[in-house]
Amino acid sequence: MAAELFKALQGHEVVVAAIVAFLVTAFMILTGRKGGQHVNPGIKKDQPKVVDSFTMKDIEDLMKKDKNGVVAICRCWRSKNFPLCDGSHTAFNKTCGDNVGPAVLKK
Amino acid sequence: MAAELFKALQGHEVVVAAIVAFLVTAFMILTGRKGGQHVNPGIKKDQPKVVDSFTMKDIEDLMKKDKNGVVAICRCWRSKNFPLCDGSHTAFNKTCGDNVGPAVLKK
Ligand code: FES
Ligand code: FES
Repeated sequence: MAAELFKALQGHEVVVAAIVAFLVTAFMILTGRKGGQHVNPGIKKDQPKVVDSFTMKDIEDLMKKDKNGVVAICRCWRSKNFPLCDGSHTAFNKTCGDNVGPAVLKK
Repeated sequence: MAAELFKALQGHEVVVAAIVAFLVTAFMILTGRKGGQHVNPGIKKDQPKVVDSFTMKDIEDLMKKDKNGVVAICRCWRSKNFPLCDGSHTAFNKTCGDNVGPAVLKK
């Protein structure tokens, strides 16, 4: 069985080498990709799960401080002012063609 | 120049084929990867930017309906009940080693 396979492949070393290289490369890249698929690339990476809590009082205080009287909660995980949105989603969407934006709380 | 290069490569077809396959595969995967880095893989992909708005009245009504009296806003973009969190972040974090979770609004 193995001998027959070996014989059939003789003379096709180039094709075999190309296929092997293809598989090895694909495996390496797809395995290494895992980290790149994180939604959150950098916020509180020492925590197992990032949950941010706000009381209604917190929200009201933040609304008072905001010039438009709203609270925008970041959902792109790129804000320098996380957990609040600072508009960074725009640059992020442009870079990779995504369509994320904040959740907005209004009066 | 090209003739010399050709001569030098003769007898090394296997190596050349492997290198070419490596480069082609790497290029294909890394180019195709772009879409994979989206934070949002599937919500309202027909919209240029997904923004969800809530009034304070909306939040209060949602709090009343919730058994724990809280409103959890999804930030992993995997909830079947988006824009609200349905706990899907747990499975997502497990799959890829991320650490995302909701923003929680409380009384
Ligand atoms: S900065 Fe993240 S949603 Fe706006
Ligand atoms: S389901 Fe998305 S944060 Fe919980």
